[in-house]
Amino acid sequence: MAATAPDPSIGRDASRTETCSIAATLDVIGDRWTLLILRDVFRGVRRFSQMHEDLGIAKNILSDRLQKLVDAGVLETVQYQERPARHEYRLTAKGADLSPSLVALMRWGDHWYAGDRPPTILVHDTCGTPLEQVTRCPHCSEEVAPNQIASRPGTGASQRESVRPVPLTLHSTS
Amino acid sequence: MAATAPDPSIGRDASRTETCSIAATLDVIGDRWTLLILRDVFRGVRRFSQMHEDLGIAKNILSDRLQKLVDAGVLETVQYQERPARHEYRLTAKGADLSPSLVALMRWGDHWYAGDRPPTILVHDTCGTPLEQVTRCPHCSEEVAPNQIASRPGTGASQRESVRPVPLTLHSTS
Repeated sequence: MAATAPDPSIGRDASRTETCSIAATLDVIGDRWTLLILRDVFRGVRRFSQMHEDLGIAKNILSDRLQKLVDAGVLETVQYQERPARHEYRLTAKGADLSPSLVALMRWGDHWYAGDRPPTILVHDTCGTPLEQVTRCPHCSEEVAPNQIASRPGTGASQRESVRPVPLTLHSTS
Repeated sequence: MAATAPDPSIGRDASRTETCSIAATLDVIGDRWTLLILRDVFRGVRRFSQMHEDLGIAKNILSDRLQKLVDAGVLETVQYQERPARHEYRLTAKGADLSPSLVALMRWGDHWYAGDRPPTILVHDTCGTPLEQVTRCPHCSEEVAPNQIASRPGTGASQRESVRPVPLTLHSTS
């Protein structure tokens, strides 16, 4: 499957996109329908007709978004019936790697919009225990809160970014 | 700040949204510009003019997205100058809680689009070590891979969801 480069035609400065992996990710999945389609595939809804019914999405939009996900190497088509030929959509390794993003988006919605009554709970398949998602420091072996996260230019930073004088911290207030 | 309910006018079945926290989240932040604005605020870019310059976004769109984030209780305005009155945008607790989502989206982009040269590295502020984000089981005290995640209806599940006969697993292939 082809790893399609981020589409530079969506109306923002490409030089910024090159230096931001969040922007690169959004170029592939930063569409509301696309994320809902991926949510369905993660839940085992893999066929066009099932997605159409589950999401209430127009067929031409569904078809377009699925093709873009296949082109980006996030989904692949697998034939499950010969006559007539029918196929379903499955996650590639690249697609499965979106799991933490969907888990994070779901947990935020659970906390801020579902109160103490989440509609779906993610559990460990072997023991059924609800899962946690944490950001942690492998050196200190401890969980890191959002206001303890800082950022620094990586090896792929542009010169503009690496000479930026202000430390880019994730601190929520200064 | 008001916790605005998800906007039901975006063209999908509201009953589905009620039972999916990913959809609820996307109703608030599922817009490409919105996520890029939030990325900027997390990095310390908090003023209208700075965001306008950094993102290359049209002022009317920036203004609209910022107002929606304030209405949703994700950002709040704080006055930093009296004459003339000027304010900046800061994350509320609800906004800071989006940190894991942005971390996850960024890491996916790093891995699949930046190769071994990520433009930005998130580090622990006290020791500078690059951070990890993991999904783990508190019962088994182990990290859980995407294909070990299952889901079950929570207390907020609709009847339709709770009687759904197929287990909703996140397994990437069946």
